[in-house]
Amino acid sequence: MSPETLFWIVPAASLIALLFAAIFFFNMKRADEGTDRMKEIAGYVREGAMAYLKQQYKVVAVFFVIIAIVFGVMACFDLQNDIVPVAFLTGGFFSGLAGFIGMKTATYASGRVAEACRDEHDGLNRGLKLAFRSGAVLGLTVVGFGLLDISGWYLILDNTGLVGGDGVSKLVEITTIMLTFGMGASLQALFARVGGGIYTKAADVGADLVGKTEFHFNEDDPRNPATIADNVGDNVGDVAGMGADLYESYAGSILASAALGAAAVASAHGTYEQGLQMVMAPMIIGAVGAILSVLGIFIVRTKQGATQSQLMAALNRGINFSGVLIALAAAGVLYLLGIPNWLGLWGSIVIGLVVGILIGKVTEYYTSFEYKPVRFIAENATTGPATVIISGIGVGMISTCWPVVFIVVGTIGAYLCAAGDLEFSSHNLSMGLYGIGIAAVGMLSTLGLTLATDAYGPISDNAGGNAEMSGLGESVRSRTDALDALGNTTAATGKGFAIGSAALTALALLASYIEELKIAAHRLGEAPIYLSSFSHESIGSGVTVAGWNIAEFMEHFEVTLMNPKVLLGIFIGAMLSFLFCGLTMNAVGRAAKRMVEEVRSQLADKDVLEGRKKADYARCVGISTQGAQREMIVPSLIAVVVPILTGLVMGVAGVFGLLAGGLAGGFVLAVFMANSGGAWDNAKKFIETGDDEICGKHTPIHDASVVGDTVGDPFKDTSGPSLNILIKLMSMVSIVTAGLNIAFSLL
Amino acid sequence: MSPETLFWIVPAASLIALLFAAIFFFNMKRADEGTDRMKEIAGYVREGAMAYLKQQYKVVAVFFVIIAIVFGVMACFDLQNDIVPVAFLTGGFFSGLAGFIGMKTATYASGRVAEACRDEHDGLNRGLKLAFRSGAVLGLTVVGFGLLDISGWYLILDNTGLVGGDGVSKLVEITTIMLTFGMGASLQALFARVGGGIYTKAADVGADLVGKTEFHFNEDDPRNPATIADNVGDNVGDVAGMGADLYESYAGSILASAALGAAAVASAHGTYEQGLQMVMAPMIIGAVGAILSVLGIFIVRTKQGATQSQLMAALNRGINFSGVLIALAAAGVLYLLGIPNWLGLWGSIVIGLVVGILIGKVTEYYTSFEYKPVRFIAENATTGPATVIISGIGVGMISTCWPVVFIVVGTIGAYLCAAGDLEFSSHNLSMGLYGIGIAAVGMLSTLGLTLATDAYGPISDNAGGNAEMSGLGESVRSRTDALDALGNTTAATGKGFAIGSAALTALALLASYIEELKIAAHRLGEAPIYLSSFSHESIGSGVTVAGWNIAEFMEHFEVTLMNPKVLLGIFIGAMLSFLFCGLTMNAVGRAAKRMVEEVRSQLADKDVLEGRKKADYARCVGISTQGAQREMIVPSLIAVVVPILTGLVMGVAGVFGLLAGGLAGGFVLAVFMANSGGAWDNAKKFIETGDDEICGKHTPIHDASVVGDTVGDPFKDTSGPSLNILIKLMSMVSIVTAGLNIAFSLL
Repeated sequence: MSPETLFWIVPAASLIALLFAAIFFFNMKRADEGTDRMKEIAGYVREGAMAYLKQQYKVVAVFFVIIAIVFGVMACFDLQNDIVPVAFLTGGFFSGLAGFIGMKTATYASGRVAEACRDEHDGLNRGLKLAFRSGAVLGLTVVGFGLLDISGWYLILDNTGLVGGDGVSKLVEITTIMLTFGMGASLQALFARVGGGIYTKAADVGADLVGKTEFHFNEDDPRNPATIADNVGDNVGDVAGMGADLYESYAGSILASAALGAAAVASAHGTYEQGLQMVMAPMIIGAVGAILSVLGIFIVRTKQGATQSQLMAALNRGINFSGVLIALAAAGVLYLLGIPNWLGLWGSIVIGLVVGILIGKVTEYYTSFEYKPVRFIAENATTGPATVIISGIGVGMISTCWPVVFIVVGTIGAYLCAAGDLEFSSHNLSMGLYGIGIAAVGMLSTLGLTLATDAYGPISDNAGGNAEMSGLGESVRSRTDALDALGNTTAATGKGFAIGSAALTALALLASYIEELKIAAHRLGEAPIYLSSFSHESIGSGVTVAGWNIAEFMEHFEVTLMNPKVLLGIFIGAMLSFLFCGLTMNAVGRAAKRMVEEVRSQLADKDVLEGRKKADYARCVGISTQGAQREMIVPSLIAVVVPILTGLVMGVAGVFGLLAGGLAGGFVLAVFMANSGGAWDNAKKFIETGDDEICGKHTPIHDASVVGDTVGDPFKDTSGPSLNILIKLMSMVSIVTAGLNIAFSLL
Repeated sequence: MSPETLFWIVPAASLIALLFAAIFFFNMKRADEGTDRMKEIAGYVREGAMAYLKQQYKVVAVFFVIIAIVFGVMACFDLQNDIVPVAFLTGGFFSGLAGFIGMKTATYASGRVAEACRDEHDGLNRGLKLAFRSGAVLGLTVVGFGLLDISGWYLILDNTGLVGGDGVSKLVEITTIMLTFGMGASLQALFARVGGGIYTKAADVGADLVGKTEFHFNEDDPRNPATIADNVGDNVGDVAGMGADLYESYAGSILASAALGAAAVASAHGTYEQGLQMVMAPMIIGAVGAILSVLGIFIVRTKQGATQSQLMAALNRGINFSGVLIALAAAGVLYLLGIPNWLGLWGSIVIGLVVGILIGKVTEYYTSFEYKPVRFIAENATTGPATVIISGIGVGMISTCWPVVFIVVGTIGAYLCAAGDLEFSSHNLSMGLYGIGIAAVGMLSTLGLTLATDAYGPISDNAGGNAEMSGLGESVRSRTDALDALGNTTAATGKGFAIGSAALTALALLASYIEELKIAAHRLGEAPIYLSSFSHESIGSGVTVAGWNIAEFMEHFEVTLMNPKVLLGIFIGAMLSFLFCGLTMNAVGRAAKRMVEEVRSQLADKDVLEGRKKADYARCVGISTQGAQREMIVPSLIAVVVPILTGLVMGVAGVFGLLAGGLAGGFVLAVFMANSGGAWDNAKKFIETGDDEICGKHTPIHDASVVGDTVGDPFKDTSGPSLNILIKLMSMVSIVTAGLNIAFSLL
């Protein structure tokens, strides 16, 4: 079938995904909201969340306007394509919109999930379905808007006169321009992850330190003034933040693969038809994945009184079903597109899917209390908080081994399948990098569904909060607890998935950076002002941009490891991950401290402490909001400014080093932080179950485990996940400012 | 003056250093040992330390024999030079001997320092001088044996028929063979750092968790059964471990610079005379540094009742004096050698010296309670242990920024000074890399003195322990405390210096890896069995090894960043640092747990608890010894095996990635861990001073800070410092097994 015809699956899938998102949303809205008290609580959370999002979008808007102007100026000097400023804004807009809708849904849903759980006959199943389908709104919105943005821009660029050239050259240009749209999504994601992460953990840490540790309140005790802020935080961080993070990976992996595909065909002097096949493949696979995710969502259901493992099985059924179908469908798509090496590329896609699953499994092993690592940490609680921390850090650091091995083996495998062999020839390299990109697309093709399971977590967490604060009784709470516990497991595996896909996407983006440099060199080569020192000839054949192959290119820019600029770039990249984490850790620390002071001062009032007077939730919400807003700016600036500065000072070689060091260092650090955090959390939960010889709540052993859990909060929900964005955003910034790098190398 | 004549300074300086080490040792032995009780305590510590060292050397000996055999086999197949197995053993032997002597001195000295402090008139000065000069024994032994090993082997290789070739080729071959001697020192250092680090912190954490936290004992309370093990640990980890670490950096930087110098001259087709100048320069500068360090040692003295800052000033006087003299002398040496670009190379050396000082200053800023970061952590103690940990990790991560900036700027500066400009030509690259190597030599030229200040720390710490356990009264204890506090500051800056020099040395070793590959290719090119696929021609001119310049070389092995093998090697390298740290952290955790159980069970006996019955110190010493021995094997094996495996599976490109990723990731991680640990330690001390509004001992705030201190123990004294070795050892292993890499690339 012709690629042009198959392409229409992409906008169609986008509309199907958005349609079902709307259906799930309105179905959820029709569900019963429960008692007045329940409505009141849900209202607080909704207001808090929306107030925060509004504030965040204000700050983001300022950044976006400034950067769009900068891009405009760059475009005037031929340092960037004219379309980029607009495209940058749409990327950011759709990402923000998906987060907004996802969060709005979540805040409407959680009270209703609690209400559904009150049903004595079918409460668990109704609660699960409602929570999961509300989560699916986020998943489908992200996927739908992502595909809409991509297919829309492709149609515009392909059918209007905005892009010159023809044949493969035109494809190369279109796809490299489109790549820069991802920058908007990336920047939006940064603010969502960093700001959301700071918000949620300032509230959580603050609420726990005073509420649990000093006053021995339960979780979500309505007397605790930070409770609402804590619940708001779940939505802000885990719904909006996670959504924006994966929106970026999703769009980034498809766009990067398309660009790499066009480049591969160009460098092999292939035909337009061949180029189109390669460019369409990632988009169509994403689209098919979106449609199959919708099917998967309908499969998730369970029966009353289901055990934890039955609940998990219900979710897994949906995920496995879609995963298998997508794997099969991908083979069909590649075959129908008529790609000669369709079987090899299919291998790359399957490898991507499998690596995603394996990283999830490793994450589960290191963070679930079914296994040895978490129990080892729990045992260490018998000798106090210090040994809990030492062992948690030890376990987290060791846990980085397998994910790296999987990424390495998977990347080599994807490269090998696509390229045929590992020899470092120009053709192999282009095809191999395309294979890495399309492996990332494969991993992310089930995103509609995996994101649903992610967003499901905070929704059921909030449902539990609502049940507790509304005093709905033990049996309801036990059902929401069952849903919530499941959410904790999916959250941990979801984090593994997010970081794994970020690594593959960033690898693909790194490769695309070269393509962008080539285009930029071409663009500047035509501008007379630079012609003196950088003629068409030095770009390559002088006729097509693609004449310059990657190996020649790397040689021209001296991107070898013995170039001190490359080596030192790697140092800076690795350091940047740590600096970024340190800043966000301290941001949480500072905001949490203000929260602690506020909560303490409110609880100093006996009436509040004994529940006769309502706590002032709004003040705590305000503290988190301000803290997040203030504290997110410096880390965000660093992520944007350092790649640009490195490019100006150390050139293309330095930027490559920076990106490689940041990617490797950031990935390992992110896995460490996410897994340490998850392991501490579940070590505490294990001790609370009272199994084994280790005893239950409010003992010194439990207190020690709470220290671990509190330290783990910013690890797993602020600093760790923010690194996902850092490693992608640095590549994106470099891609978008590639023209600057070239221009400076000419000065 | 001819380089041949000047060379004799090297063996002379070696003998001078060793002579003064002997003088200081015997002078110390003549000092009064104090009361019987003091002798008894000192005896326990000495026995424990020697027993441990004996055990450690046994394990090390097994490793050394196995590896020497492997090298022997490799030599049979022309994969390595025949001399390497023997040289490997001498490197390990001298490093071990230096550690042994240093530790023997320290364990003899500490009791005598306590005795010296009993002098009411001149106790502080006598104590300082005795402790410092005993520390100087380690410094001078390390420097002396290092220079002896280097100059001895140079004389043997230059004057016997062991090395073929003539002119510059011979120099290239001699220096690359000598480079492999460092591997022995490296491996010895690994065991010393990892084993010593586990020993000392298992004892320290175990002693503190039960003694301080559960029973509110003071530090060094004789009723605490782990006290002696704790004191032994200071010697094992901070004397023997630190000595072996810096022995390796010292020898490594001199050897790497010599190899790079010979290679630079060879690739520029220079004369033998020119080659000799470049090879001699690092050795002679090291030698002059050794002599001037002896002078510096004599300057350190103070007066009774000196304040903390006066004591610090006394030490700094010695360091600054030698530093300035060495800077001046280096200019003289380079000028006398007749090196054309002597001024540029002098610039590189001065940059090395300055970077070492700056990293020390940054370390001081982040770990001394005079400054904001530590006070910020101390403030966070008011909200409990969790916020202490979060803020400490935040501060540590942020603290990685400046050291990286200094290393980056320093490296570029050293490169620039030596090469003339930053353009990436073959000549510039060779000279620039030489500049980086010689900057490392510059940084380490004051080693005799800086190591004296390092070893001074544990000696005065043990003196305090002896005073406490022997019940010497308040005024003596206050003087040993003053000496000890000074030791804490020098320990922190010493750690910064150790890691900074490790980074520069590893950079130089990475560059030398190329030289080793060239030699290996040459060696194998002559072996008929490989000739079919790898002829002389492909090595370069086919006549001299040096005909192949670095840029061509990097191209041949595809060491560009877009080679997936390189990128993935970087991932593995970064991961390895974390894995290594995680393993050592958990090793400490496990050994400490056994210690806690032992101490608890001993203190369950009322007679022991109330001091009527002597605690069984030997059992605790045994637990630490066994724990260290058992736990050091896996991390050590990983450090040796992974570079070899990576080379076999991913070739030269993969190894380069691994080394770069390991170096950058390991450096940043090491700085983070050392500084977090140091900051926690001093945050606790700050709270103990009771200044500020934060109150003194045995409050919840103090308890919270003790948690931070305990977590920091393995950070700063086990995992962090072990990384210094990891990053150097991986390069060393790759250098020594370069022949394997080449052979496999030919299969």
